Amino acid sequence: MDDRGPYMVQPIGVVRSALRVPSEAPNQAEGAPDAVIEIAPRFAEALHRVQAGDELIVLTWLHLADRDVRQTHPMGDTSIPLTGVFRTRSPDRPNPIGIHRVTVTALDGPTSLRVDALEAIDGTPVIDLKVALRRP
Amino acid sequence: MDDRGPYMVQPIGVVRSALRVPSEAPNQAEGAPDAVIEIAPRFAEALHRVQAGDELIVLTWLHLADRDVRQTHPMGDTSIPLTGVFRTRSPDRPNPIGIHRVTVTALDGPTSLRVDALEAIDGTPVIDLKVALRRP
Repeated sequence: MDDRGPYMVQPIGVVRSALRVPSEAPNQAEGAPDAVIEIAPRFAEALHRVQAGDELIVLTWLHLADRDVRQTHPMGDTSIPLTGVFRTRSPDRPNPIGIHRVTVTALDGPTSLRVDALEAIDGTPVIDLKVALRRP
Repeated sequence: MDDRGPYMVQPIGVVRSALRVPSEAPNQAEGAPDAVIEIAPRFAEALHRVQAGDELIVLTWLHLADRDVRQTHPMGDTSIPLTGVFRTRSPDRPNPIGIHRVTVTALDGPTSLRVDALEAIDGTPVIDLKVALRRP
Protein backbone atom coordinates (compact mmCIF):
# COMPACT_ATOMS: atom_id res chain seq x y z
CA MET A 1 0.00 0.00 0.00
CA ASP A 2 1.61 3.16 -1.23
CA ASP A 3 0.25 5.82 1.08
CA ARG A 4 2.24 9.00 0.77
CA GLY A 5 1.27 12.40 1.96
CA PRO A 6 -0.20 14.23 3.65
CA TYR A 7 -0.48 17.00 1.11
CA MET A 8 -1.16 20.67 1.80
CA VAL A 9 -4.15 22.37 0.16
CA GLN A 10 -4.04 26.15 0.07
CA PRO A 11 -7.38 27.92 -0.53
CA ILE A 12 -7.46 29.88 -3.80
CA GLY A 13 -10.56 31.83 -2.82
CA VAL A 14 -13.84 31.84 -0.94
CA VAL A 15 -17.59 31.51 -1.53
CA ARG A 16 -19.79 34.55 -0.87
CA SER A 17 -23.40 33.50 -0.50
CA ALA A 18 -26.66 34.37 1.24
CA LEU A 19 -26.47 30.87 2.77
CA ARG A 20 -25.09 31.44 6.25
CA VAL A 21 -25.48 28.16 8.12
CA PRO A 22 -25.25 24.54 7.00
CA SER A 23 -28.89 23.84 7.85
CA GLU A 24 -29.85 26.32 5.11
CA ALA A 25 -27.67 24.64 2.52
CA PRO A 26 -29.64 22.47 0.11
CA ASN A 27 -28.31 19.05 -0.77
CA GLN A 28 -26.99 18.50 -4.25
CA ALA A 29 -30.23 17.06 -5.60
CA GLU A 30 -32.01 20.32 -4.74
CA GLY A 31 -31.65 23.85 -6.01
CA ALA A 32 -29.11 26.37 -4.75
CA PRO A 33 -28.93 30.16 -4.79
CA ASP A 34 -26.53 32.14 -6.91
CA ALA A 35 -23.26 33.10 -5.29
CA VAL A 36 -19.97 34.88 -5.85
CA ILE A 37 -16.59 33.17 -5.95
CA GLU A 38 -13.84 35.55 -4.84
CA ILE A 39 -10.44 34.40 -5.99
CA ALA A 40 -7.34 35.63 -4.17
CA PRO A 41 -5.62 38.30 -6.31
CA ARG A 42 -2.38 36.29 -6.41
CA PHE A 43 -4.21 33.71 -8.54
CA ALA A 44 -5.65 36.25 -11.02
CA GLU A 45 -3.47 34.93 -13.87
CA ALA A 46 -5.02 31.49 -13.48
CA LEU A 47 -8.44 32.98 -14.40
CA HIS A 48 -7.24 34.25 -17.79
CA ARG A 49 -10.00 33.77 -20.42
CA VAL A 50 -12.68 32.78 -17.90
CA GLN A 51 -15.83 34.51 -19.09
CA ALA A 52 -19.59 34.67 -18.63
CA GLY A 53 -21.20 31.52 -19.95
CA ASP A 54 -18.36 29.23 -18.94
CA GLU A 55 -19.32 26.04 -17.16
CA LEU A 56 -16.88 25.31 -14.36
CA ILE A 57 -16.34 22.63 -11.75
CA VAL A 58 -15.73 24.25 -8.36
CA LEU A 59 -13.95 22.31 -5.63
CA THR A 60 -14.51 23.54 -2.11
CA TRP A 61 -13.07 22.63 1.28
CA LEU A 62 -16.04 21.81 3.51
CA HIS A 63 -14.43 23.33 6.56
CA LEU A 64 -17.28 22.49 8.96
CA ALA A 65 -17.26 18.77 8.12
CA ASP A 66 -16.49 15.98 10.58
CA ARG A 67 -13.50 14.14 9.13
CA ASP A 68 -13.92 11.14 11.44
CA VAL A 69 -17.31 10.03 10.09
CA ARG A 70 -17.11 6.75 8.11
CA GLN A 71 -20.80 5.85 7.61
CA THR A 72 -24.01 7.85 7.34
CA HIS A 73 -27.63 7.67 6.19
CA PRO A 74 -27.60 9.23 2.70
CA MET A 75 -29.42 12.57 2.58
CA GLY A 76 -30.12 12.19 6.31
CA ASP A 77 -32.85 9.67 5.45
CA THR A 78 -32.82 7.07 8.23
CA SER A 79 -34.94 4.73 6.08
CA ILE A 80 -31.81 4.23 3.95
CA PRO A 81 -29.34 1.82 5.60
CA LEU A 82 -26.05 3.15 6.97
CA THR A 83 -23.74 3.59 4.01
CA GLY A 84 -20.01 4.20 3.75
CA VAL A 85 -19.34 7.89 3.16
CA PHE A 86 -17.45 6.99 -0.03
CA ARG A 87 -20.81 5.90 -1.47
CA THR A 88 -22.57 9.14 -0.48
CA ARG A 89 -22.29 12.89 -1.05
CA SER A 90 -22.09 13.63 2.67
CA PRO A 91 -19.78 16.53 3.53
CA ASP A 92 -18.52 14.42 6.46
CA ARG A 93 -15.64 12.32 5.08
CA PRO A 94 -11.87 11.97 5.59
CA ASN A 95 -10.97 14.71 3.07
CA PRO A 96 -14.02 17.01 2.99
CA ILE A 97 -13.88 18.25 -0.59
CA GLY A 98 -17.09 19.46 -2.23
CA ILE A 99 -17.74 19.33 -5.99
CA HIS A 100 -20.10 21.81 -7.61
CA ARG A 101 -20.94 22.42 -11.27
CA VAL A 102 -21.73 26.08 -12.00
CA THR A 103 -22.22 28.46 -14.88
CA VAL A 104 -20.40 31.79 -14.70
CA THR A 105 -23.04 34.50 -15.16
CA ALA A 106 -20.80 37.57 -14.88
CA LEU A 107 -17.37 38.80 -13.88
CA ASP A 108 -17.80 41.30 -11.05
CA GLY A 109 -14.13 42.26 -11.26
CA PRO A 110 -10.86 40.62 -12.25
CA THR A 111 -11.04 37.99 -9.50
CA SER A 112 -14.75 37.86 -8.69
CA LEU A 113 -17.02 35.41 -10.50
CA ARG A 114 -20.78 35.47 -10.20
CA VAL A 115 -22.19 31.95 -10.61
CA ASP A 116 -25.71 30.68 -11.05
CA ALA A 117 -26.07 28.13 -8.27
CA LEU A 118 -23.74 26.94 -5.54
CA GLU A 119 -24.80 24.83 -2.56
CA ALA A 120 -22.08 26.03 -0.16
CA ILE A 121 -22.35 28.44 2.74
CA ASP A 122 -20.79 31.87 2.91
CA GLY A 123 -17.12 31.64 3.81
CA THR A 124 -16.52 28.17 2.37
CA PRO A 125 -12.95 27.98 1.07
CA VAL A 126 -12.55 27.35 -2.67
CA ILE A 127 -9.60 25.11 -3.56
CA ASP A 128 -9.84 24.63 -7.35
CA LEU A 129 -11.69 25.58 -10.52
CA LYS A 130 -11.72 23.52 -13.73
CA VAL A 131 -13.57 23.83 -17.00
CA ALA A 132 -16.48 21.38 -17.07
CA LEU A 133 -16.35 18.70 -19.72
CA ARG A 134 -19.35 18.56 -22.02
CA ARG A 135 -21.94 16.12 -20.88
CA PRO A 136 -22.27 13.25 -23.37
CA MET B 1 -10.69 38.10 1.55
CA ASP B 2 -11.15 35.22 3.91
CA ASP B 3 -8.28 32.89 3.10
CA ARG B 4 -7.86 30.29 5.81
CA GLY B 5 -5.88 27.14 5.59
CA PRO B 6 -3.76 25.46 4.54
CA TYR B 7 -5.58 22.17 5.00
CA MET B 8 -4.04 18.73 5.19
CA VAL B 9 -5.17 16.05 2.75
CA GLN B 10 -4.37 12.47 3.72
CA PRO B 11 -4.48 9.89 0.91
CA ILE B 12 -7.20 7.26 1.41
CA GLY B 13 -5.73 4.93 -1.19
CA VAL B 14 -3.83 4.58 -4.43
CA VAL B 15 -4.42 3.88 -8.13
CA ARG B 16 -3.03 0.66 -9.59
CA SER B 17 -2.84 0.88 -13.38
CA ALA B 18 -0.89 -0.28 -16.40
CA LEU B 19 -0.23 3.42 -17.08
CA ARG B 20 3.26 4.01 -15.74
CA VAL B 21 4.33 7.45 -16.94
CA PRO B 22 2.37 10.66 -17.50
CA SER B 23 3.11 10.68 -21.24
CA GLU B 24 1.03 7.48 -21.51
CA ALA B 25 -1.93 8.97 -19.68
CA PRO B 26 -4.75 9.98 -22.02
CA ASN B 27 -6.43 13.32 -21.48
CA GLN B 28 -9.97 13.34 -20.19
CA ALA B 29 -11.56 13.61 -23.64
CA GLU B 30 -9.91 10.34 -24.64
CA GLY B 31 -10.31 6.79 -23.41
CA ALA B 32 -8.54 5.31 -20.41
CA PRO B 33 -7.70 1.75 -19.36
CA ASP B 34 -9.32 -0.06 -16.49
CA ALA B 35 -7.60 0.19 -13.14
CA VAL B 36 -7.79 -0.86 -9.51
CA ILE B 37 -8.35 1.52 -6.61
CA GLU B 38 -6.75 0.17 -3.44
CA ILE B 39 -8.22 1.79 -0.36
CA ALA B 40 -6.21 1.78 2.87
CA PRO B 41 -7.70 -0.84 5.25
CA ARG B 42 -8.31 1.78 7.93
CA PHE B 43 -10.97 3.31 5.63
CA ALA B 44 -12.74 0.00 4.91
CA GLU B 45 -15.86 1.08 6.82
CA ALA B 46 -16.27 4.05 4.50
CA LEU B 47 -16.75 1.64 1.57
CA HIS B 48 -19.76 -0.07 3.15
CA ARG B 49 -22.40 -0.86 0.47
CA VAL B 50 -20.13 0.02 -2.47
CA GLN B 51 -20.81 -2.63 -5.10
CA ALA B 52 -20.26 -3.56 -8.72
CA GLY B 53 -22.25 -1.26 -10.98
CA ASP B 54 -21.86 1.81 -8.77
CA GLU B 55 -20.86 5.00 -10.52
CA LEU B 56 -18.36 6.90 -8.42
CA ILE B 57 -16.47 10.16 -8.61
CA VAL B 58 -12.80 9.57 -7.77
CA LEU B 59 -10.64 12.46 -6.59
CA THR B 60 -6.91 11.98 -6.99
CA TRP B 61 -3.88 13.98 -5.92
CA LEU B 62 -1.82 14.56 -9.08
CA HIS B 63 1.47 14.20 -7.27
CA LEU B 64 3.65 14.88 -10.32
CA ALA B 65 1.96 18.20 -11.14
CA ASP B 66 3.68 21.59 -11.14
CA ARG B 67 1.77 23.69 -8.61
CA ASP B 68 3.32 26.96 -9.80
CA VAL B 69 1.81 26.89 -13.31
CA ARG B 70 -0.87 29.58 -13.80
CA GLN B 71 -1.50 29.44 -17.57
CA THR B 72 -1.24 26.75 -20.22
CA HIS B 73 -2.31 25.79 -23.73
CA PRO B 74 -5.34 23.52 -23.22
CA MET B 75 -4.64 19.90 -24.19
CA GLY B 76 -1.08 20.97 -25.09
CA ASP B 77 -2.46 22.52 -28.32
CA THR B 78 -0.37 25.62 -29.00
CA SER B 79 -2.96 26.83 -31.52
CA ILE B 80 -5.21 27.54 -28.52
CA PRO B 81 -4.21 30.78 -26.74
CA LEU B 82 -2.65 30.61 -23.30
CA THR B 83 -5.47 30.04 -20.83
CA GLY B 84 -5.64 30.30 -17.06
CA VAL B 85 -5.38 26.85 -15.51
CA PHE B 86 -8.73 27.40 -13.76
CA ARG B 87 -10.33 27.29 -17.24
CA THR B 88 -8.56 24.05 -18.22
CA ARG B 89 -8.24 20.45 -17.05
CA SER B 90 -4.46 20.66 -16.83
CA PRO B 91 -2.98 18.66 -13.94
CA ASP B 92 -0.67 21.63 -13.33
CA ARG B 93 -2.55 23.97 -10.94
CA PRO B 94 -2.21 25.31 -7.39
CA ASN B 95 -4.02 22.35 -5.79
CA PRO B 96 -3.50 19.45 -8.21
CA ILE B 97 -6.70 17.47 -7.65
CA GLY B 98 -7.95 15.21 -10.44
CA ILE B 99 -11.62 14.30 -10.95
CA HIS B 100 -12.57 11.02 -12.61
CA ARG B 101 -15.96 9.40 -13.14
CA VAL B 102 -15.79 5.60 -13.03
CA THR B 103 -18.02 2.56 -12.85
CA VAL B 104 -17.10 -0.12 -10.32
CA THR B 105 -16.87 -3.40 -12.24
CA ALA B 106 -15.90 -5.70 -9.36
CA LEU B 107 -14.71 -5.83 -5.78
CA ASP B 108 -11.37 -7.64 -5.73
CA GLY B 109 -11.39 -7.72 -1.93
CA PRO B 110 -12.82 -5.66 0.92
CA THR B 111 -10.79 -2.57 0.02
CA SER B 112 -9.93 -3.12 -3.64
CA LEU B 113 -12.23 -1.74 -6.35
CA ARG B 114 -11.85 -2.62 -10.01
CA VAL B 115 -13.06 0.27 -12.17
CA ASP B 116 -13.71 0.55 -15.88
CA ALA B 117 -11.60 3.52 -16.91
CA LEU B 118 -9.28 5.81 -15.03
CA GLU B 119 -6.86 8.23 -16.66
CA ALA B 120 -4.31 8.32 -13.84
CA ILE B 121 -0.91 6.65 -13.63
CA ASP B 122 0.04 3.82 -11.33
CA GLY B 123 0.79 5.11 -7.85
CA THR B 124 -1.43 8.19 -8.02
CA PRO B 125 -2.82 8.89 -4.54
CA VAL B 126 -6.60 8.73 -4.16
CA ILE B 127 -8.06 11.31 -1.78
CA ASP B 128 -11.85 10.84 -1.99
CA LEU B 129 -14.67 8.76 -3.46
CA LYS B 130 -18.27 9.94 -3.84
CA VAL B 131 -21.34 8.48 -5.44
CA ALA B 132 -21.94 10.10 -8.83
CA LEU B 133 -25.12 12.05 -9.24
CA ARG B 134 -27.34 10.96 -12.08
CA ARG B 135 -26.76 12.94 -15.21
CA PRO B 136 -29.84 14.99 -16.09
